[in-house]
Amino acid sequence: MPITARADQVRTCPSELSKAFRDTRSLSECLVAPLSEADATLQSMEDASPAKWHLAHPTWFWETFLLRDHLDGYTLYNEDWPFVFNSYYEAEGERIARFSRGMLSRPTLSQITDWREKVDAAMEPLFEREELALLIALGIAHEQQHQELMLTDIKHALFQNPLGSSMWEEPDGKTASHAEGWHSHPGGIARIGHQEAGFAFDNEGPVHRVLLEPFELNVRLVTNRQWSEFVADGGYETASLWLSDGWAWVREDAITAPSYWRGDKHFTHSGWQPRDPDAPVTHISYFEADAFAAWAGMRLPTEFEWEAIARGQEGECAAHDPCAGNQLDEAAPPSPQGSEGLFGDCWQFTRSGYLPYPRFQPAAGAVGEYNGKFMNGQFVLKGASCATVRGHSRASYRNFFYPHQRWQFTGLRLARDV
Amino acid sequence: MPITARADQVRTCPSELSKAFRDTRSLSECLVAPLSEADATLQSMEDASPAKWHLAHPTWFWETFLLRDHLDGYTLYNEDWPFVFNSYYEAEGERIARFSRGMLSRPTLSQITDWREKVDAAMEPLFEREELALLIALGIAHEQQHQELMLTDIKHALFQNPLGSSMWEEPDGKTASHAEGWHSHPGGIARIGHQEAGFAFDNEGPVHRVLLEPFELNVRLVTNRQWSEFVADGGYETASLWLSDGWAWVREDAITAPSYWRGDKHFTHSGWQPRDPDAPVTHISYFEADAFAAWAGMRLPTEFEWEAIARGQEGECAAHDPCAGNQLDEAAPPSPQGSEGLFGDCWQFTRSGYLPYPRFQPAAGAVGEYNGKFMNGQFVLKGASCATVRGHSRASYRNFFYPHQRWQFTGLRLARDV
Amino acid sequence: MPITARADQVRTCPSELSKAFRDTRSLSECLVAPLSEADATLQSMEDASPAKWHLAHPTWFWETFLLRDHLDGYTLYNEDWPFVFNSYYEAEGERIARFSRGMLSRPTLSQITDWREKVDAAMEPLFEREELALLIALGIAHEQQHQELMLTDIKHALFQNPLGSSMWEEPDGKTASHAEGWHSHPGGIARIGHQEAGFAFDNEGPVHRVLLEPFELNVRLVTNRQWSEFVADGGYETASLWLSDGWAWVREDAITAPSYWRGDKHFTHSGWQPRDPDAPVTHISYFEADAFAAWAGMRLPTEFEWEAIARGQEGECAAHDPCAGNQLDEAAPPSPQGSEGLFGDCWQFTRSGYLPYPRFQPAAGAVGEYNGKFMNGQFVLKGASCATVRGHSRASYRNFFYPHQRWQFTGLRLARDV
Amino acid sequence: MPITARADQVRTCPSELSKAFRDTRSLSECLVAPLSEADATLQSMEDASPAKWHLAHPTWFWETFLLRDHLDGYTLYNEDWPFVFNSYYEAEGERIARFSRGMLSRPTLSQITDWREKVDAAMEPLFEREELALLIALGIAHEQQHQELMLTDIKHALFQNPLGSSMWEEPDGKTASHAEGWHSHPGGIARIGHQEAGFAFDNEGPVHRVLLEPFELNVRLVTNRQWSEFVADGGYETASLWLSDGWAWVREDAITAPSYWRGDKHFTHSGWQPRDPDAPVTHISYFEADAFAAWAGMRLPTEFEWEAIARGQEGECAAHDPCAGNQLDEAAPPSPQGSEGLFGDCWQFTRSGYLPYPRFQPAAGAVGEYNGKFMNGQFVLKGASCATVRGHSRASYRNFFYPHQRWQFTGLRLARDV
Repeated sequence: MPITARADQVRTCPSELSKAFRDTRSLSECLVAPLSEADATLQSMEDASPAKWHLAHPTWFWETFLLRDHLDGYTLYNEDWPFVFNSYYEAEGERIARFSRGMLSRPTLSQITDWREKVDAAMEPLFEREELALLIALGIAHEQQHQELMLTDIKHALFQNPLGSSMWEEPDGKTASHAEGWHSHPGGIARIGHQEAGFAFDNEGPVHRVLLEPFELNVRLVTNRQWSEFVADGGYETASLWLSDGWAWVREDAITAPSYWRGDKHFTHSGWQPRDPDAPVTHISYFEADAFAAWAGMRLPTEFEWEAIARGQEGECAAHDPCAGNQLDEAAPPSPQGSEGLFGDCWQFTRSGYLPYPRFQPAAGAVGEYNGKFMNGQFVLKGASCATVRGHSRASYRNFFYPHQRWQFTGLRLARDV
Repeated sequence: MPITARADQVRTCPSELSKAFRDTRSLSECLVAPLSEADATLQSMEDASPAKWHLAHPTWFWETFLLRDHLDGYTLYNEDWPFVFNSYYEAEGERIARFSRGMLSRPTLSQITDWREKVDAAMEPLFEREELALLIALGIAHEQQHQELMLTDIKHALFQNPLGSSMWEEPDGKTASHAEGWHSHPGGIARIGHQEAGFAFDNEGPVHRVLLEPFELNVRLVTNRQWSEFVADGGYETASLWLSDGWAWVREDAITAPSYWRGDKHFTHSGWQPRDPDAPVTHISYFEADAFAAWAGMRLPTEFEWEAIARGQEGECAAHDPCAGNQLDEAAPPSPQGSEGLFGDCWQFTRSGYLPYPRFQPAAGAVGEYNGKFMNGQFVLKGASCATVRGHSRASYRNFFYPHQRWQFTGLRLARDV
Repeated sequence: MPITARADQVRTCPSELSKAFRDTRSLSECLVAPLSEADATLQSMEDASPAKWHLAHPTWFWETFLLRDHLDGYTLYNEDWPFVFNSYYEAEGERIARFSRGMLSRPTLSQITDWREKVDAAMEPLFEREELALLIALGIAHEQQHQELMLTDIKHALFQNPLGSSMWEEPDGKTASHAEGWHSHPGGIARIGHQEAGFAFDNEGPVHRVLLEPFELNVRLVTNRQWSEFVADGGYETASLWLSDGWAWVREDAITAPSYWRGDKHFTHSGWQPRDPDAPVTHISYFEADAFAAWAGMRLPTEFEWEAIARGQEGECAAHDPCAGNQLDEAAPPSPQGSEGLFGDCWQFTRSGYLPYPRFQPAAGAVGEYNGKFMNGQFVLKGASCATVRGHSRASYRNFFYPHQRWQFTGLRLARDV
Repeated sequence: MPITARADQVRTCPSELSKAFRDTRSLSECLVAPLSEADATLQSMEDASPAKWHLAHPTWFWETFLLRDHLDGYTLYNEDWPFVFNSYYEAEGERIARFSRGMLSRPTLSQITDWREKVDAAMEPLFEREELALLIALGIAHEQQHQELMLTDIKHALFQNPLGSSMWEEPDGKTASHAEGWHSHPGGIARIGHQEAGFAFDNEGPVHRVLLEPFELNVRLVTNRQWSEFVADGGYETASLWLSDGWAWVREDAITAPSYWRGDKHFTHSGWQPRDPDAPVTHISYFEADAFAAWAGMRLPTEFEWEAIARGQEGECAAHDPCAGNQLDEAAPPSPQGSEGLFGDCWQFTRSGYLPYPRFQPAAGAVGEYNGKFMNGQFVLKGASCATVRGHSRASYRNFFYPHQRWQFTGLRLARDV
């Protein structure tokens, strides 16, 4: 996941920054609250990490890149912990093999909570230092990303339990949007990349121009009902709909439906629940999204098309308030329910490979690891999901996953040529 | 691990049986007491199971084969649990994949403790029923085996943690035996197999005769000091000492020492501790034991030779009291320290394949799964280890593992021809 | 590999088409001539196929898509052979597992030669039929692709032999180009995709516009000498130069140099030969090309940049005659030696993912399998190599491979922003 | 496969030894004659080797252990070949990875034939040297073992070809024996191991005594008809019949019949042929043999029981002439057809682990690699098969394979307790 920031201005007064920090730190604790010590230690696959680790790793980030590097006289809470809570920063030295994170019954949750408190307290003087504002904004965005991963990883872990674990009560049902229609775009040159005030990751820039052909983008995400039609029509048995690697994946892993589906139920943070046919389909892979689009006679949008619609024709993003979706803003079960805007509900696959923008340069130093180093084999996803912290995403945001991965809240929005 | 019993008499009065049951159940709780909920959920490899599972699985055994099958009107505590707590009983239906036991953050330890209490209470009337005495004795022996596995599995799990977890204080040092010399046997026909009163597993019989040639068996287990000489002499780099499969294992897994060794320390239930040169070497595989014996110009004993010495020349086992060793009888860290007898300290590899005795027949029904079904590719180990419950083993006891496995307290005792 | 054609005009008189067909068929035979029956049967990895199979598969293509589908009354030479000589055409039914092609000691080379002759003779009447001209042009391009694969696959197979097999005499040395400098491009809108007369694959279109920023492209391919400097400077040990997946690949496969390097020699179709420092480096993966560019402080071009330079600023391709390189036009060992043009020597990695052009639609039917179905996870390569048939490539040609693959004649040409 | 000999006398006059050598060498050439260069290069799995390699490896043995070590002034035919034709002799240095033998398109068959001729000619003076007689006898037995492997390996390779390759004409049908009944043995002490004049491998000794209980051994091998009844009765779907590892093997590899079965045909060196119900079943694994015996309510014999019957009650082997079976004595397709004796048709699984006899010591030096080094995880097979050279086996012969392997001509003969 991307964790470095462009060096443009993050103009925030110290008190706002400090509040954002505290809110973020507090939300992490809130999300882990329904879990037992054992729940928080589970690692269900190499792609996923224990919830406890998602509490600890951002703390390591704060301690390493802020306190150790910028607070005179700071001593590490525990010198051995960086080995287990560094994720992939080569410049920060050797670390525990990723698939062994699930063996960390120690340190305990309460030890990590204590660490968090100490780190949070030590951070206070740093909010005053203007030159650190960008780095702190990055740290906040980084912890927000791990909040989303914590939710998707623990969902995957609880799903492994044949007894049907849950961690939250089922939320009240909401009425899904029934909007129909298409956003139209006349084509032409679009300005792509982060161009507003505020924080953004380095991979969202530099701003550059892209030439678009006329196209349309659906106002609605593909729904469970539509997906059921695809299944019923033999979508998973029809080789001609699939990418070659996708077809191999379908056959080897015996894929017959989105992840977490069983009969007319699906697995949620509230256990097995009936599936709302009008809610957006989630937990699909790029392979599935692409096959569905082929079946529907349409295609996925490019990341540039999506961003152009999100900005509107004046290049402004205001008309599509990210806050209008059902993104995470409290410790409640994430549940996609069909919002009106482009954001929220689920990350939307594009047909754009996750590759560098023209003149892209990764930031220097360890904190500059890396968006750049993941730029092969993955696809860009746009928008945000019901598990994304409100305010975290934006029109230029680029999420990315491999084409077979589907444990995130991933969905699709169809596009077509005009 | 073997879990069925021969149909010979287990003459125990109800009150003794009931006490043995309660003692055994209590020890299991005692062993798990130092562990957190997360510790007890860890599964570090497919061969190992979580400590919590080792609490639950014997409870499933009691509930299934005693209460369900023999107590009128008994209803299961939870109908879904057999799916996750059955180990390998094909006759009892489908079950969770072995490598997924580590995903069981639920049920919690306290739920399992509650189950244990309910099952224990429900068992009371059954001790009076003579026809169940054998089955109850089997259940006790079965739970004792899982106590040993719990200890070796949690050791392996804590070892995965780079931070050096421990679960007990280091015990007081004891002085290792410095006995030297050989037990001699003149050869001749020996009666092999369980031939005393009391419980035994089905694979310990039938009693049969075996012809032995004259041989000697060392009075002492091979020590860490001797093993260090083997290492220093290039034992792990000398192909000619090794079985072909053993040499492949050494090279593929980059084996250079017994498991848990690092420098002059070794990993214990009390964390990293100095290694006593005079203590028996443990955590070696059959491949290593066989290579060491070749290096020493000797050999491993057969299971028959070992048993013949254990019985003495009159066929009596009294001279070698299993209780003289340092076997487990309280919740304290198992630690091999060089006892005088044949038992205790560590399981001893023999060169005998784990195969059926003449006229061996597995018991009927699910409870008869199975010693027999494991009779290929494994070697017999004799004795007992510091993690074996006192009184659990005997001269005819046959433990068995694959030649590469070494997470048990395994060691070796050399033999030679005369 | 792509095998379908765009439906634009392939204006060729029957006699020319017939000659091109005969020349192509004849070259295939010529390439396999130095091989023994056993050489021609070898399959060294799943990505590669036996030389014999590369003789047979295009013959299956001709027989299936031309003779069977378009020649009344034609009967298959052998009804069982499609099962073993179909490559990946799902619409043509089940086929032999790819990794089992190396088990085909039968049919023999002479049986396949007989089949080829029969098919060639049967083809004669079809050259007159205008509606088949495109399909025949496609078949020719398809067989040319398999000629290149035959050369790279047999090189890989002979390389497995520790005795150092060769199949050709070493060619006379040529003097490599010592041109220096950069092609400059001012940026602007470029027309991309196949836009001339003549055959092209479907993935080369539709023609569309792309907006370029100013850039420069080196006139020379990176040489062995430059690569040795990268190695000497610790390029393969410096994590920060590599993509994350690339670094994992380097460590897992213990990569320390391009494929086929050993000391100051490299393996060729003429066995182990000294490596010319001024010749272009070949047999590198995308991961390596990308790391080298990072080390050099530059970058790989996009496919659009490469094509724009290849066309010249007027969009014409004439200034860069593909025939100026040392591409394959006789049965001689392919050997990159530093030609002046953009083509020849080796395929050049771009940083463009292999993805569909706007409004791309794969052709219908089995013959339309597929360029499209390979559009994930791969990168576009431009140019041609010393093993490409002269005239096969063009400015719009898109070759593609996964980022770890390097058994083709792959190299790199650096680009930089202005 | 075992290749070293006990140091007892092999009393053979030079002319006899020379003739045996020439006959053996000649048979190898004869067996490979029906194969093409490509056939002879195929390697279908790691357990199997190319036919050409089976021609070359024994030649390497003769050149290394006889000519190089014992003929003054001998120079190797080719210094690079030991690297590719050594099998597993660690003391003879590094060698090609086993699974890469199939890449050896060079040297060619005719180069190897030339090598064979040169080696054969150079051997002539050595037959006069009495001290080499044992080593020469060993070399002959070694090459005979590779003749059998050549036949089973090429059968496995041809089977991979979906087109149904064959290498020989189908032999005339023979009438299978319909003998019924049991060999009885009263029990008692039996002398086991090689005890006659003539050559034997080191693992056949030392002679030692074993105590047997009364038992019976069937006079007939289990037939295809009996096996079909096992299949029809759900043998492959009944977990309780199988060893635990066997059941895992059945499920993972989807085993439903002996190897080479399809419908009522089976694959032979003469291609797909109808299966004779009265012929012995072959190409079964230990797991299958054991499950069948459980289904039949009987068991497999021990190796000692089998040998005791083979010797008769006086310990003589004469009554069971190995030559009475249909073993290989000419270059014709091996085909089990139900001979009367214990030998011939197929190797018979015993329930004895392949382990050392008391006081067993492997021979010294490289030639002493190794029967001993394979002594774990395998089972002993007795008898001989239709692919064994006539005169190669004997009552004390111990063949051995892992319990899942079944590409040899393996079958079973039931035993029962009395």
